[in-house]
Amino acid sequence: MAERRRWSEEFPRWFDWVLEAAGIYDWSHYPVKGMGVWLPYGFKIRRLVTDLIRRLLDETGHDEVLFPLLIPEHLMRKEAEHIKGFEAEVYWVTRGGIQELDVKLALRPTSETAITYMESFWIKSYKQLPAKYYQIVSIFRYETKATRPLIRLREVTTFKEAHTAHANFDDSERQVLEAIDVYKRFFDALGIPYLISRRPEWDKFAGAVYTIAFDTIMPDGRALQIGTVHNLGQNFSKAFDVKIQLPDETLDYIWQTSYGLSDRVIATIIAIHGDDRGLVLPPIVAPIQVVVVPIPAKSEEETRKVREYIDSIVEELREKGVRVYVDWRSDVTPGYKFYDWELRGVPVRLEVGPRDVKNRTVVVARRDTLEKKTVPRDQVISEVLHLLDDIGRNMREKAWKWFRSYVHRSESLDEARKLLEEKRGIVEVPWCGREECGKRMEELTDAKVLGSPLQPPEWVRGASCPVCGRPAATSLRLAKRY
Amino acid sequence: MAERRRWSEEFPRWFDWVLEAAGIYDWSHYPVKGMGVWLPYGFKIRRLVTDLIRRLLDETGHDEVLFPLLIPEHLMRKEAEHIKGFEAEVYWVTRGGIQELDVKLALRPTSETAITYMESFWIKSYKQLPAKYYQIVSIFRYETKATRPLIRLREVTTFKEAHTAHANFDDSERQVLEAIDVYKRFFDALGIPYLISRRPEWDKFAGAVYTIAFDTIMPDGRALQIGTVHNLGQNFSKAFDVKIQLPDETLDYIWQTSYGLSDRVIATIIAIHGDDRGLVLPPIVAPIQVVVVPIPAKSEEETRKVREYIDSIVEELREKGVRVYVDWRSDVTPGYKFYDWELRGVPVRLEVGPRDVKNRTVVVARRDTLEKKTVPRDQVISEVLHLLDDIGRNMREKAWKWFRSYVHRSESLDEARKLLEEKRGIVEVPWCGREECGKRMEELTDAKVLGSPLQPPEWVRGASCPVCGRPAATSLRLAKRY
Repeated sequence: MAERRRWSEEFPRWFDWVLEAAGIYDWSHYPVKGMGVWLPYGFKIRRLVTDLIRRLLDETGHDEVLFPLLIPEHLMRKEAEHIKGFEAEVYWVTRGGIQELDVKLALRPTSETAITYMESFWIKSYKQLPAKYYQIVSIFRYETKATRPLIRLREVTTFKEAHTAHANFDDSERQVLEAIDVYKRFFDALGIPYLISRRPEWDKFAGAVYTIAFDTIMPDGRALQIGTVHNLGQNFSKAFDVKIQLPDETLDYIWQTSYGLSDRVIATIIAIHGDDRGLVLPPIVAPIQVVVVPIPAKSEEETRKVREYIDSIVEELREKGVRVYVDWRSDVTPGYKFYDWELRGVPVRLEVGPRDVKNRTVVVARRDTLEKKTVPRDQVISEVLHLLDDIGRNMREKAWKWFRSYVHRSESLDEARKLLEEKRGIVEVPWCGREECGKRMEELTDAKVLGSPLQPPEWVRGASCPVCGRPAATSLRLAKRY
Repeated sequence: MAERRRWSEEFPRWFDWVLEAAGIYDWSHYPVKGMGVWLPYGFKIRRLVTDLIRRLLDETGHDEVLFPLLIPEHLMRKEAEHIKGFEAEVYWVTRGGIQELDVKLALRPTSETAITYMESFWIKSYKQLPAKYYQIVSIFRYETKATRPLIRLREVTTFKEAHTAHANFDDSERQVLEAIDVYKRFFDALGIPYLISRRPEWDKFAGAVYTIAFDTIMPDGRALQIGTVHNLGQNFSKAFDVKIQLPDETLDYIWQTSYGLSDRVIATIIAIHGDDRGLVLPPIVAPIQVVVVPIPAKSEEETRKVREYIDSIVEELREKGVRVYVDWRSDVTPGYKFYDWELRGVPVRLEVGPRDVKNRTVVVARRDTLEKKTVPRDQVISEVLHLLDDIGRNMREKAWKWFRSYVHRSESLDEARKLLEEKRGIVEVPWCGREECGKRMEELTDAKVLGSPLQPPEWVRGASCPVCGRPAATSLRLAKRY
């Protein structure tokens, strides 16, 4: 078991510690670098996160599908920019049994090529559009950078990729907005703060016309990309010759978008909401929302009464759809149980002992603020329901407040560099919009770009690009990035 | 679109037709042999099937986990029998980006090696046992036999593998019985008939002490293995040196079992319940349990009334947890819709037109028997609930009746051979129990063994082995197998 670490001062080590200590993800034993094992408790969190994004995508008319993992080399190579971008990080299957394969097979790094290829058989007319597919799958990237659990994996095990096809450019632009809206609602439900940036030309998805990204900030002040939305234009549909008949009976290539999320979402839930005691889970994805810790009684009669009292509370909570668990272990103390469930981030803890039975009360503790109070029995259910709601909201507000304190503005690159070194987080500076100046800013601040806001911000009016002195057209966001 | 085929006379082609026509699985376009794409409607069926097995496993204390897809060669090779059995059908990743990998990585054909390896870190004491894990994942087998959609795939996309560890042999035997019980309940819920056989020594899982298998019969009379349960003994735990401390403080290797299901379950649901019109889905896994087809009205006023009438029915059904869909398409006739939903196997169809509104009735049609009747509005909900229950039961009974008519007994190999040629299905013959005679029976009947019943059957008492003439110890089941 790794040594306990403090959340704020030792973030990367705290993260490794909590993944192992809370039973989320075994990162240290699997004998292939960059790959780990989802453990039972972690898997349950993962399941609730995927349930949430499934619901949001289903509600907006996306169809879940499942494409093969293996993509033949000739498909991977059809879109020239795409393969250039992925060439260095594709795993290749070259042998089947004892035979050399005729055609090398890529472990999908993403599925644009496989999906567009199949769309060439499926989609013939504008009447079939929009087509909106998604799948939740493993993808593989032979990362050369240092791998990190759930953050930089060689097997990304929870890749949600959506792929849409449209009859014209405007519809694809509307789809980009819908995707952004779905992701906003997803991150909001999880209490994850974000900035939405248009990535610059030199950092867009390989094969896209443009890329919009969601970035958050980890406790160590480094920015983490947690979601991307791409307008693919007709790049892939031209490469794969996917043509449709339009209302006027002419032919045109389809217009596509794609957008993705990964294990990084789960990493972020764990990282940004955690504290020195361990996980703090948003109730919406907590496998156990309420844990009941019985306080030992002295007599059998008392024990029986405590049990009945707890049973009735549990039954009422379950009826309300609350995920509740009673920790009846007899070989550990209540104090040990408190420690254990705090580590696992259970939002609400109820403590029930003989005194509570006698007084018709329950002790209610919340994980986010660690506050504790005594509540009359007849108010327990409504108090718990209120708390589950309030904890989610409080966690979101706290996370956003913290996040905002890490987003800075500056008109000077010297200051920007200093901010990034001393305060970390994200710095936004005025920018003329030219690639040359953007890249120079990366050098001068020793940081990486995130891109620009979707609309030029008010505050850059009249400001000038700190590299070339030209008037600012927009701003550029820079950060130390994961 | 493939040509429509008859279920009984042209089974394999019917199966290909229905997968495509009902939008289940695209088998014909993906450019890698043995791999296909789960389409939206098929994916929903698959989801309901996996939900069902998840529920049964969760209820019996199994924890869902997720292990890496890639298994390094040295792990794959640790258990000698295991790699011998799988050597010829493992896909190997040998390149990452532009580099040759130092260690070849297998695409998992199954996960005993990866899981036992991790258990060597996790499990130290009998107090941690039993440990019961499962995962639902893709596995890969470089099949040299002819591939078939969902039946013999190179990417098996819905592999449910459970792996358990125990402190002694007796506990592992009890676990085998629990696994058999879970699978029985699973297949019973899906209305799938089966025989349970102990596979003979020469056809057990590579690395197992013994293998128990569930076999069903497809509409063409060929047997299909749909589930297996293995007692692994200490074969893997010795190879991976997984030792625990026992209550008496001595050390011993853990005892393991594993058991698996695959896409073949979904293939079987489709195959055995289908008919010439297409799918017939058991209500428990029907994405749409009730489809409502509005019968067009002549006036706007009538149309509005039909809509309100339907809305109220739908609302009541949804409250009862029924998955209901109203087909409001205006560009196709009700007759076309009937055809379409019959093809997709929706268990119950409601037809509602102006006359029904006037008479306060609904026409109710069931997919399994194609019966149709008119029901008063105030009995519709209870009638539908009754039907969903009755259809599941009726389908199960019908399937078992059909299945039993394909299971034969014979004391003569000549007759057995004739039965297998003319009537197909499974033939059970008396057997002395010796491998030599079993293999000879395979030759003489031109069939493959399924194995023996778990207990020697009554009817072989006094009978003799048709090969060697010795007294029968049990029976042997033979079939043309997929």
